[in-house]
Formats: sequence, C-alpha cells, structure tokens
Amino acid sequence: MKTILLTIGNEVLNGQVVDTNAAWLAQELLAEGLPVVEKWSVADEIPAIVEALGHCLDKGDLVITTGGLGPTQDDLTCEALAVFLKVGRVFHAPTYEGIEQLFRKLGRLPSASHLDQARLPEGAGILTNPAGTAPGMHFVHMGKHIISMPGVPFEMKAIFNTQVRKLVQQYKTGPKRFSHTFNTVGEGETLLEDLIHDITAGAPSNIRFSFLPDLYRVRIRVDLDSENPEDHAAWLDIIQQVRLKLHRYIAGENETTLELAIGNILREKGWMMGTAESCTGGMIGHMITRNAGSSEYFKGGILAYSNELKSKFLEVDPLTLEKEGAVSEATVRQMAAGALDSLDVQVAVAVTGIAGPGGGSAEKPVGTVWIGVADIHGRILSKKIQLRRDRLLNIQAASTMALILLHRFLLGE
Amino acid sequence: MKTILLTIGNEVLNGQVVDTNAAWLAQELLAEGLPVVEKWSVADEIPAIVEALGHCLDKGDLVITTGGLGPTQDDLTCEALAVFLKVGRVFHAPTYEGIEQLFRKLGRLPSASHLDQARLPEGAGILTNPAGTAPGMHFVHMGKHIISMPGVPFEMKAIFNTQVRKLVQQYKTGPKRFSHTFNTVGEGETLLEDLIHDITAGAPSNIRFSFLPDLYRVRIRVDLDSENPEDHAAWLDIIQQVRLKLHRYIAGENETTLELAIGNILREKGWMMGTAESCTGGMIGHMITRNAGSSEYFKGGILAYSNELKSKFLEVDPLTLEKEGAVSEATVRQMAAGALDSLDVQVAVAVTGIAGPGGGSAEKPVGTVWIGVADIHGRILSKKIQLRRDRLLNIQAASTMALILLHRFLLGE
Repeated sequence: MKTILLTIGNEVLNGQVVDTNAAWLAQELLAEGLPVVEKWSVADEIPAIVEALGHCLDKGDLVITTGGLGPTQDDLTCEALAVFLKVGRVFHAPTYEGIEQLFRKLGRLPSASHLDQARLPEGAGILTNPAGTAPGMHFVHMGKHIISMPGVPFEMKAIFNTQVRKLVQQYKTGPKRFSHTFNTVGEGETLLEDLIHDITAGAPSNIRFSFLPDLYRVRIRVDLDSENPEDHAAWLDIIQQVRLKLHRYIAGENETTLELAIGNILREKGWMMGTAESCTGGMIGHMITRNAGSSEYFKGGILAYSNELKSKFLEVDPLTLEKEGAVSEATVRQMAAGALDSLDVQVAVAVTGIAGPGGGSAEKPVGTVWIGVADIHGRILSKKIQLRRDRLLNIQAASTMALILLHRFLLGE
Repeated sequence: MKTILLTIGNEVLNGQVVDTNAAWLAQELLAEGLPVVEKWSVADEIPAIVEALGHCLDKGDLVITTGGLGPTQDDLTCEALAVFLKVGRVFHAPTYEGIEQLFRKLGRLPSASHLDQARLPEGAGILTNPAGTAPGMHFVHMGKHIISMPGVPFEMKAIFNTQVRKLVQQYKTGPKRFSHTFNTVGEGETLLEDLIHDITAGAPSNIRFSFLPDLYRVRIRVDLDSENPEDHAAWLDIIQQVRLKLHRYIAGENETTLELAIGNILREKGWMMGTAESCTGGMIGHMITRNAGSSEYFKGGILAYSNELKSKFLEVDPLTLEKEGAVSEATVRQMAAGALDSLDVQVAVAVTGIAGPGGGSAEKPVGTVWIGVADIHGRILSKKIQLRRDRLLNIQAASTMALILLHRFLLGE
C-alpha cells in the first residue's frame, strides 16, 4: 500500500507554517506499517488541488490530505474533492448542528459560508471531529483510498487517533518494517559513519542505514524490510555491532532521548537536578520538563538573565561579575555551585553566554558560551563552546551541549 | 518564475525530521518575489529523485532541492542529478580539500566514500558551503534552473544567504506580491472570519485573505498580487478596515508577534518583567528570550517546579499549598506577587497547572492551569483555563495564554 501525503494550504507554501502534521502523520503511519513514499504540498486553489489528487492517486494507493476544510474563504478542499470525484455536495446535518452550537455559545447565527462548510461531497464517509467543527472524510475511488482531514494539528490528531488509525490498519500490506534508532550525541555524522563503515558496507541489501543530524545530535536508524526470521537475526546482530562500536556516543536508543537518559540516571541515583540559566532563558528547563514524569528528578531552576539575579539567587560574587564578566569560567562555576546550594539539589547545570545578535566583543564574540556542572560530591566541570549561528540556534545548541555535558558528568566521564 | 521545492530524504518521509527547511526557504523566496507553487518530498532513492526532478522541472522554472548531499551512504542526490542531467561526475579539488582538512583535525584519513562526495556532476556551478563540507550546486537545464543544497539547516541557510539569494534575485519575474499580516490572539478563526466577513466578501479578486490558526493565535494575512497603484491603494484601505474591526484582538502586525508587542509596551513604560513558572517549566522564559533585545525588559524568573521552591523563592505560604494545593487560585496569586517582590520587577506572570499525562484528579483534571499577573501598583489578576491536549501542547498553550493575559493586563484591560 503506497501512501502519499498531500498538504493543502498557501500557509505551508509561503512558509508561514512549518508542516509538522506531515511529520507526525508519517511517524504514525510508519508505526502502522504504512511507510509514506512521497509528500506533496499545493496551494489553496481548486485546479491545483484537483491536479494533485490525480497525480497522487496515480502513484499511490492511499492519499491522506490535510488542510483546507475550515470555515473561511481560503478553505477549498471540499469543493476540490467534489470536482475531482465528479460528485455533487450534500448537506450533512450533524456537521451543521456542530457549527450552529458553536455560534449559539457566541450568541450569534451562522452565515451562509458556514452552511457551505456542512455541504460535503456525496459518498463521503464521515470522520467525526472531536476537537472542532470540520469533520474528516474518507472516500474509495477506483479501488484506492482518500482520507481528508483538517489542517489544525490537534483536530487532525484527534481524528487520526479516534478513527483513521483503525481505518488504515485494514489497508496494510507488504512486509512489516522493523526499525531501530541510536540517539548519539556530541559527534558529527562524518565521524560516526566512518566508525561503522565496515558494518554498513557489509550489511545485506534489505538493511538500510539513515543518519539524521541535528544540533550536536545524530540519530542513526537501522531499518529492516523483511519478516524472514533469518533476516531478522542478521538485523539484530548488526544492531549489536553498531551498539558496541558507537557505545561512547550513544545517549539512548529508540524512544530514549538524551533528556530521558539523563532522567533515568537521576532516578537510579535518587538525585534531583536543578538549572541556572542565563542566555538559554528557560530552554534547558523546557527540554527537561516537556517529558512526562520529569518532576521525579527536576526540582526547578533560576533564570538569572540579569547580573543582579545571578548574585541574589546563585551566590555569584559581584566582584567576579565586575572583573571577569557575566560570560566567564569563574561566573559559570559559581552559578553551578550556587544553584546546587540554593536549589538544594544533588546536581546542577549552569549556562551563561552571548546568544546574539548583539552583545559581542572582540574578546568575547557572539556565540561565546560557558557551561558548568556541579554535584554534591564537590565535583565541578566547566567548558567553553564557541557557536556561530543565529540567536535561536545558539540558544538551542547551548542548551543541548549543556545537557550533553550533564549526561557525561553523571556517567562519571 | 514558478518555483518548486524538492526535499530529498527518508527522514522527512518517515517523520523523524520536521521539514523546517521548506518553510524557511519559502519565506525567503517569497520575500524575494518568488512564491513557491508546490512542494515535494521524496525518498533517498535514485529512481525516485530522478523522477521527481523530471516532474518538478516540467511544472516549474526553478527547482530547489535540499538534502542528500552528505557523506553517508544514504546521500544520493549527486548521483541522481548526474543521472537526470545525463552527465558524468568530475572530481572537485576544493571540496575534497575541505573534507581532508576536517579529517586531519580528527587525526584520520578520508575513506573512498568521502572521495566520492567530491565527485560532482559535470557542469555544476559550485555554491561554497561556509558551514560544512558538502557544497551546494546550481545547474541550467533546457532554460530552467536547478539549485541543490545540503539538508542540514544551518548549512543550507549559510549557502542561501551568501550565494543563492543573489542568484534567485536575477530570476524574479511577474508582479511583486504585497503581504500584510495581523497577529491576533485569544479568539478562533471562525469568529474572526465572521467579524470581517463583509470586508473579505467585498474585496477585489486580486486581494486574498488567509487565516493561519495556532494555539490561541490566528495570523490573518492579506495579500495583493498586483503592482498597479490603484490596486495598492484599495489593498491599504482594506488593511485599515480589518485593523479597525479586529482592533481588540490584534497583538501586533507583520513581524510584531505577541512577545514583541509585550516587549514594546514594557520598554515604553520602562518596566522589567519576571516569571514564576511551574508546569510550563521554562517555556515562557524561552518564548520571551528567544527575541533579540529581550534583556532590556526581561530580568529573569524562577522555575518553581517543586513546592519547596515555590515557598523558598516565591513566598508561597506552605499552608496554602497544603490546603488549596499547588494548582489553585490562591497559590498562583501568591506566586505572582512573590515573583514581583523577590525578582524586584514591575510586573510578573505566574503559571501553575497539570500538564499531564499524569497528576490529574476528578476535581483538578489534567489540563487545569491557573495563571496570575501582578504589578507594582498592586493590581493582580488570576484566571483558570482548562486544556485538553497532550503534555507538550498543554505546556505551549498555557505559556501562550499566560502571555496573552500579561499583554491585556499591560494594556490596562
């Protein structure tokens, strides 16, 4: 079953919206054994949508569209589907009642354009929207499948989880795909690929390697396209070879990201961690706390953006700030030790730097970042990194490197 | 000049990577007057890439590819370009020297596969990579243009900014597109569209409206496809009508997001703000500090994830925590007032809630969030919101709503 995603919307083509729906859907579909073979995005224009539907159904067996089902005048997917399928549109009472109910809550009456939203292409199987007014739809067309969902991410996810998942599970054909991911940190893909080159070069052709680089992280995925037990054993053996070879760079495997690996070590030690963030402004706290269960090992932190707070809450000596500056080894070590003490935790990580675009000097250019880690055994580590990117990337890179150093520190390296 | 983006890589098709490159490129190209008409993503397979190049050049005049130029075995774009263009590959010495230099730094020698990375399709115009080893390339093929860049975001951006921008500026044809965006907060697209329905329905056909909903935010974009002065005047008039009608929902226009609007008000008042975050874990701090210049109005914050820190740094009465619980109106009001005092700022925003998936109860289900704002004039505001999404979305929604309430509070509403 060749699956193709079609994203409908000018906002995706002009870059105002990053297409996170496509990534989410692709992951879910892959987990259901339906790898996506192609992705398209087209504008909110009926001829463009109709043409794209034709192309996609030519090449694929299942086409999933997102976007263009809302109530506003740029939402044209319903009409395009009717044109493509050569059917009329029929009034769907439950959809209209949902819209009416929403308007009643606002003390208003729906307009004609909202009535239009309830006129769905004839033959549509309705996928109820638990999170909004526009329903999803599914169609069977010349033996192939079309599923259409709204583009608002939480509405799309709600429809997928409640109805589309079950639907596509019935479509699955072909061998199950097995996938294993190593989440490496601290090294680039060139070195990593070089280290396992003998393994990748000698692997059978139904095993594929992918290298997915991100800031200081490379995910290495090893896929198997076969259900044969011998192939499966060979795949497991290759995974073990990669594991042994890259051991020192692997923070975790599959769902275990760097952040979760840190959490696992802290849980095992019975330790709580704390943060002292200056230039990263809360990003490290967010990276840790976006994971469920983080309150078991994250106690809290200080966003010491100003020097005054560095002294008040983190016991940084004002003389150090004056002499060495806020972005210095002496300051970051005091921040880490101060956080350990004032947050009353067993390990603390501190970051101070110049994220840019302003604030740099010849001696300390934009991108200069000091990272410190301290624990209750009196161990303390400090390291300078030099970044050269834009502000947001510098913040993300500094936060990731701080977590990498914390992870190594916890492993006793 | 019809422009098409082609993303090459299994990681995009299987959802391991969100295609932020395409959004960034589309915005930059639009700013240069080259709207993207279609977007494709294909797998790391030579036949798929070759076929996609054919399709894209059929429909477009300029095709920009990203991805598949790295050193690892899944990087096949170079070979696919050579096959598509029916040319051989020639050794490019400066590219090889860059790779050699990188390996020298690692104390190693490049392998045969790295030599391969320096063999570029004949006739390629070289786009130097200031941030990595794989260069970009441009080709002219039957009067149309192909530009090929690596998929690593900061490498792609570096090549675009230093070379591709100038290149595509020469390609631009057709009328300039004008675009104006209203950044609204706190209301859904249905109500907003309804409020300006008379304006959108009466607008001339070369003016287009797009509604881009996000968590508690809707961006409304008004585009004009014409360089005629009369059309331009009509467009400005319509923008003014929308501005008057939606006044109370607009936080800012064009580049002025909610966060920057808050910064502008604080700068004008000469105020500093602070944060007291529990369930949002640093996200509010990050949303404020990711903007350049935020140190002028953001002093810092407390990540009071544990109850102990709520009392220690935010002066929350332990009896309140015991009686009312950490997620309560009494606690959030004390957190806001405590942050005001201990951070010594003029305005503070506080959030406490249950992000999920655990921690809920019948009385306080997952998604229960209390937000508080307090200022030095003794004004204090508190509000409960009930979210129903997954953990990360709840964190993002609570953070956005906290900033919306802070913004209204600062406006005196």
